[in-house]
Amino acid sequence: MSKTNAFKNILNSIKNTSPLVHNITNYVVMNNTANALLAVGASPVMAHAIEEVEDIVSISSSLVINMGTLSEKWIDAMLLAAKKAKTLNKPFVFDPVGVGASKYRSETAQRIINEATPDIIRGNASEIMALAQLTNSTKGVDSTVSSDTAVVAAEKLSKELNNTIVISGATDYIVTGNTIDEVTDGSALMPKVTGMGCTATSIIGACIAVEPNYHVAATVGMQIMGKAGNLAEKSAEGPGSFQIHFLDVLHQLK
Amino acid sequence: MSKTNAFKNILNSIKNTSPLVHNITNYVVMNNTANALLAVGASPVMAHAIEEVEDIVSISSSLVINMGTLSEKWIDAMLLAAKKAKTLNKPFVFDPVGVGASKYRSETAQRIINEATPDIIRGNASEIMALAQLTNSTKGVDSTVSSDTAVVAAEKLSKELNNTIVISGATDYIVTGNTIDEVTDGSALMPKVTGMGCTATSIIGACIAVEPNYHVAATVGMQIMGKAGNLAEKSAEGPGSFQIHFLDVLHQLK
Amino acid sequence: MSKTNAFKNILNSIKNTSPLVHNITNYVVMNNTANALLAVGASPVMAHAIEEVEDIVSISSSLVINMGTLSEKWIDAMLLAAKKAKTLNKPFVFDPVGVGASKYRSETAQRIINEATPDIIRGNASEIMALAQLTNSTKGVDSTVSSDTAVVAAEKLSKELNNTIVISGATDYIVTGNTIDEVTDGSALMPKVTGMGCTATSIIGACIAVEPNYHVAATVGMQIMGKAGNLAEKSAEGPGSFQIHFLDVLHQLK
Repeated sequence: MSKTNAFKNILNSIKNTSPLVHNITNYVVMNNTANALLAVGASPVMAHAIEEVEDIVSISSSLVINMGTLSEKWIDAMLLAAKKAKTLNKPFVFDPVGVGASKYRSETAQRIINEATPDIIRGNASEIMALAQLTNSTKGVDSTVSSDTAVVAAEKLSKELNNTIVISGATDYIVTGNTIDEVTDGSALMPKVTGMGCTATSIIGACIAVEPNYHVAATVGMQIMGKAGNLAEKSAEGPGSFQIHFLDVLHQLK
Repeated sequence: MSKTNAFKNILNSIKNTSPLVHNITNYVVMNNTANALLAVGASPVMAHAIEEVEDIVSISSSLVINMGTLSEKWIDAMLLAAKKAKTLNKPFVFDPVGVGASKYRSETAQRIINEATPDIIRGNASEIMALAQLTNSTKGVDSTVSSDTAVVAAEKLSKELNNTIVISGATDYIVTGNTIDEVTDGSALMPKVTGMGCTATSIIGACIAVEPNYHVAATVGMQIMGKAGNLAEKSAEGPGSFQIHFLDVLHQLK
Repeated sequence: MSKTNAFKNILNSIKNTSPLVHNITNYVVMNNTANALLAVGASPVMAHAIEEVEDIVSISSSLVINMGTLSEKWIDAMLLAAKKAKTLNKPFVFDPVGVGASKYRSETAQRIINEATPDIIRGNASEIMALAQLTNSTKGVDSTVSSDTAVVAAEKLSKELNNTIVISGATDYIVTGNTIDEVTDGSALMPKVTGMGCTATSIIGACIAVEPNYHVAATVGMQIMGKAGNLAEKSAEGPGSFQIHFLDVLHQLK
């Protein structure tokens, strides 16, 4: 399948089948994430109660866990949902927001990865470095990490976990073992809008719901983000109007 | 009172008196809901702590409970607030988001209805069917429910609970016993924006705060949504700009 | 330092150093707050778990606590974070949302002030009056408080707490003991958008992170809000487009 075909096929497949994407995500971005999933053609469901996450995983096509705002009950629900996803062979994407910024976040990321290995992990360079360190693939976390260094860490991490690692940034790297793809589209306004990374993770959650090749799903997810960012910037006057155009473009994307 | 007069009177009344509308709602839509209430002229208050919900109900003109994101403490607060509203004869609107999608949601909806009957319930066709099934008014919940079938369920439910049931969709149905009104305004972009249903429920919460006839309040609430949706669509390029125009229009509505 | 210089210096300093501003804030405004901080050039972090707030305070340049939506665990985290900020001499801004509206809110505000005096408190006239009453600086809280009356209360409160009090409204008052500054910029659309006050508090949190004179930091924070509000209004058609322009303008501000 050519890359152009993968993009069109996955996008069409999302629009035609409206896969239900179960998100356990943070308070800051819930609204953006839900709107981005709706705009791209998927169907978002947000549910975090221990009492219902297993039911919701069961009816969903994929699971997205984002640890942006943590607390005990949420972590319990994340673990329960992730394990259910593994049991049911539902694809599971993980966003380790802020891993390395506090001991609590690092421990939580490690617990999730240990108890239910995510099929795809997406983070920025610092987060992927912090994760790789946790799993002993590398030592020392630099607060100003270059993407090159992070790619090496991602390769090791991907081989260790036998999954796909996405490093997002000015250039995005999609790493599955020795296979590395790059996406260079996007906009300098993206880091000026809260939760664009979280949105990327959920868009990957929509792609993985319809595409069994996780590397391809992750790559197309980042291509969708890049292309929408690129187009949205053209008519934006700042991060406010950028957000609005981004949703409009995502809805129009073909 | 003619229908046109009801619309103008209720809208003016909201703008002139700025009724305090107490919302216990979900994380995804809190911001939208608060902004929609402000735009239409009401005064929103969001409070969910068991320690204060009774105080807040006491100073508010109406109560809106939305079970979009559930957890134990929130359910306790919802029940406490709903019972306080009944005790004080404050109008109470309920949005059973996702009822039927998990056992937990179905049980919670049933508990709320049993312990404090809502004056108005608003949901989509599937949710109203699921509710009607819970209360034994009908049997079998179809995941792809036609509005016609849902209207029959709503009639039975309304008679059983002695209240008003609103089914929102391309055509909205407002059902109070045998009285059925329809609203056909709106926009195809509304289902592409998260929480438009939740916004409808809160706008009804503003109407019921100033209009003692609940059927009329619910009808005008849906007319406000429909008219604003209709006007917002005219200058929208997608679900992002639609949301922005929707708030602008709601603010300008006369 | 002239007032114009203070404005430019603080704004440049935020843009050049991107101070990390730790927010423990309410569900309704988290997204707006994070986006406003990003737009002005700061770096927001939202974290509320007891397990990590001390770690996050330690790596942040300032702390903002906003009690818009309360519950027990959040209050525990707020107290822990505030005490850690005092221990580490990190500047701490407090937004007593809705103090006076419920006993729970009044008690919580009092606990926070007693256990860790905020360097700056920002509220509307009613909230500042309610706070002043709690601390016995004045008696009786009027629900329709004139700003003049509130300024007298703010002076007493500021002297008692030896800090800076900001009253926001059509005219903003920044009060430090007998020193009172006024900001008259802004827009009539600001009260029609949820969380503009909360945004003001967080923008002050960015200013206090780079400016050791708290009175000056608070004044410039309100000037940034006023100027951005003023400019955003020029091209706004209502509260929806106002919000978008506000972020764009905040990003462009020099």
